[in-house]
Amino acid sequence: MLKEFPLGREVDRPSAESAVEAYREKLSAQQLQLKEKKLPVIILIEGWGAAGKGSLIGRLIRYLDPRFYNVCTRSVPSDEELRKPFLWHYFTKIPQNGKIVIFDSGWMEETVRSVESKELGKKKLTERLEGIRIFERQLVENGYLVVKLFLHISRDEQKKRLEELEEDKNTDWRVSKADWRQNDHYDKQLKRFDKYLEATNEPWAPWNIVDATNRKEAELAAFRIVTEAIDAALAQRPGSVPLPHPERFPVLRMPQLAKVSLDKTVRSEEDYRAQLKSAQKRLRQLHNVLYRKKIPLVIVYEGWDAAGKGGNIKRLAAALDPRGAEVHPIAAPESFELSRHYLWRFWTRLPKTGHVAIFDRSWYGRVMVERLEGLCSEADWKRAYYEMNEFERELVRWGAIVVKFWIHIDPNTQLERFTERQNTPEKQWKITAEDWRNREKWPEYEKAINEMLRKTSTEFAPWYIVESKDKRYARLKALNIVIRAIEDRIREDD
Amino acid sequence: MLKEFPLGREVDRPSAESAVEAYREKLSAQQLQLKEKKLPVIILIEGWGAAGKGSLIGRLIRYLDPRFYNVCTRSVPSDEELRKPFLWHYFTKIPQNGKIVIFDSGWMEETVRSVESKELGKKKLTERLEGIRIFERQLVENGYLVVKLFLHISRDEQKKRLEELEEDKNTDWRVSKADWRQNDHYDKQLKRFDKYLEATNEPWAPWNIVDATNRKEAELAAFRIVTEAIDAALAQRPGSVPLPHPERFPVLRMPQLAKVSLDKTVRSEEDYRAQLKSAQKRLRQLHNVLYRKKIPLVIVYEGWDAAGKGGNIKRLAAALDPRGAEVHPIAAPESFELSRHYLWRFWTRLPKTGHVAIFDRSWYGRVMVERLEGLCSEADWKRAYYEMNEFERELVRWGAIVVKFWIHIDPNTQLERFTERQNTPEKQWKITAEDWRNREKWPEYEKAINEMLRKTSTEFAPWYIVESKDKRYARLKALNIVIRAIEDRIREDD
Repeated sequence: MLKEFPLGREVDRPSAESAVEAYREKLSAQQLQLKEKKLPVIILIEGWGAAGKGSLIGRLIRYLDPRFYNVCTRSVPSDEELRKPFLWHYFTKIPQNGKIVIFDSGWMEETVRSVESKELGKKKLTERLEGIRIFERQLVENGYLVVKLFLHISRDEQKKRLEELEEDKNTDWRVSKADWRQNDHYDKQLKRFDKYLEATNEPWAPWNIVDATNRKEAELAAFRIVTEAIDAALAQRPGSVPLPHPERFPVLRMPQLAKVSLDKTVRSEEDYRAQLKSAQKRLRQLHNVLYRKKIPLVIVYEGWDAAGKGGNIKRLAAALDPRGAEVHPIAAPESFELSRHYLWRFWTRLPKTGHVAIFDRSWYGRVMVERLEGLCSEADWKRAYYEMNEFERELVRWGAIVVKFWIHIDPNTQLERFTERQNTPEKQWKITAEDWRNREKWPEYEKAINEMLRKTSTEFAPWYIVESKDKRYARLKALNIVIRAIEDRIREDD
Repeated sequence: MLKEFPLGREVDRPSAESAVEAYREKLSAQQLQLKEKKLPVIILIEGWGAAGKGSLIGRLIRYLDPRFYNVCTRSVPSDEELRKPFLWHYFTKIPQNGKIVIFDSGWMEETVRSVESKELGKKKLTERLEGIRIFERQLVENGYLVVKLFLHISRDEQKKRLEELEEDKNTDWRVSKADWRQNDHYDKQLKRFDKYLEATNEPWAPWNIVDATNRKEAELAAFRIVTEAIDAALAQRPGSVPLPHPERFPVLRMPQLAKVSLDKTVRSEEDYRAQLKSAQKRLRQLHNVLYRKKIPLVIVYEGWDAAGKGGNIKRLAAALDPRGAEVHPIAAPESFELSRHYLWRFWTRLPKTGHVAIFDRSWYGRVMVERLEGLCSEADWKRAYYEMNEFERELVRWGAIVVKFWIHIDPNTQLERFTERQNTPEKQWKITAEDWRNREKWPEYEKAINEMLRKTSTEFAPWYIVESKDKRYARLKALNIVIRAIEDRIREDD
């Protein structure tokens, strides 16, 4: 895309100036429309070093109300950041509804840099690009506008600018070795850029190449692209963007919940204690191995109310080093969470490599409570099956072990436990009117859960049904599944 | 405190075991009381390397409900973290009401390490210790329980443990050079620990030295200390902790708002444009200097509704490099913010060194809207004056420039602007029923604001009253004040 792009056309400066002014006013007005229509906008500005990304952003935002936008810059990632999945840096920074986030270079720059440094081999690059296409598609499908600009300059122009920056002691730190390396190997870099641009130039998030030779002209082009894209998005009804049918993931066969036998029990209390002790001991050792090998572990707990999730998690968490494990109780989202992509609050809670995150309820709320309570549209929850599969595959490709538990009981057991909670003062806080209401919807939930288990139990992130009529049995089963999952993975690695 | 502490007493193991069990049940029950009483608890576990901090924490939380606690561990701080104020790492991690956060070593370890490495000279150490005492006092005064434990072992014991850890390949990475250095220079390190412990052993957050020679005994002691402290805090009425009268900060003389003349204007539109352009240009240059010298800049905007804060901020922000500047619009706190110390949401928004944070409204809401709308108690807002002075001094000691603007108009000007907003469709979103209600309370607000200006205009973080009847005059004035503040600081440094 870059090779054939003509650079350095002559421009008529005075008219550009007044055109920019008009666009600026337009963008100012659009802010309010974004707010009203709750449309979130992501603007990604990529380009050559010294192409003027920073100053272009400065111009774009000059008359924007600071309450409506944010600029995200990434310099060299910290060790902490490097221990998160690639997309974590970006997903965690997406805007709330009605707001604009401008990325001052981002997932393109980082990817091309990793290609250059040979950190990304061929297979990993393919996966990376696929992950990026999915990332952008998921954003657009969930109502985001994604505008991507690439600021293009020639080799000579870049050289001139780098030299200028270096002459002033207040700006010379802006010029890095990487910038000069880019200039020295301009043609190679252009090919890398081009490959990336072509691989990620999708109709729902197309690339816009901007000739950045003349600053005023680049500004004009950027304003035109951004304001037109916003206008188009404002005019569009949600879901009207034509999106490709996503990949179907091969899934594992799962039994219908009704057919799961719940008569499994532990032989005796002594037997339970002994097994629990030895399983916890084993898990404790394995956590050290995870640390050492920097393998992240993500565990999802879903299950019926009163199925014994809490106690099950406690036994598991107790065997982990608390310095490297965190339990995330997921309640109804707060307003700052609700106003973003529904996966955002899970991206923000991902563990570092070598650490464990246990989700006490999870993203699967989308296809259970949100579906049944009408908290999202039908299109939303239907789409969520593959979005969640994609999300989990991204985690697995990053290196994570993903284990998902459905803690299972039958309606009678639930009734017994509800009644016991109601009658035990120290346990009353555990039971609410909502629990009783949910209970009435058991059949609808069961149908939704069966569908969820059928559609999202992938080989890379399988569901395990954990029979929890005997809670002790369930605890041992969950512990042993986690142990096996880690052992399998370590064996592969060795 | 450590030197005279007897280590390695003999213990009667079987009774310890059952006592631990009883404490565990007690702590489990206390969780619910914490939840009910909305009491937040911070447990700081410090101690020698290999004293068993991690495994002690593992034992403390074994039967806690993961929804109620969190463990914070800090390894080597990232570059990003190092560019935040020292207390930022800890203040941003304090718990919500009703929850427990356990710090697996924290502000003590980091401070002593900096003493050891000679990063902290005498003066800086004094300031650091003062900052820590204030941090803990502010937490306690705002309803937090702070429990501090130091795990003590002898030199021989430490040596033995380090050797054991190194023998196993899954744990040998846990032993660092720093641990061995500690052991080699045990006596010196003991003196450093002791100095720290003595300097921060305050009645509102006293130290508990725990003999960690025997793990079971240490566990027992920790459970006893924690559960007793929680019991005491639950029994206490808020505000009943005896706290010292804090330091009075010397303040600058401020005029009464009523006496501020509002007739200042810019001569002409051309004059305004020319001055704006040159001031913005100057500020743009200075931002580069801030970057280079890694000086952080914090700007607070407060002012009457419709005083022109938004437009003023826009002109200032437009002159800054958006990659290093952020505007934080402060609205009513969301529930996850309300349930923490009121300064928490400002700590989380502090800039990195070399960056600029502009607060569009700020922590001063405490002594204006929160005071007048009864959103906090009288004791709360009265205490806030010195808490905010302390907060700002901490920022200045970190190296920040702090500038605070009161954007000022008179009631008639406000009425005109409200009416204009009401009558202009594009501006209607800017005016709400609440604005009209606030307007009725002008005299009360004026009284509160005068008190605020009088009590919190310190030499290190002065207030500037910006006359904004002529908004253009106000914009130039604010810009020039920021420019001067930066220039003064740079001159000092050079």
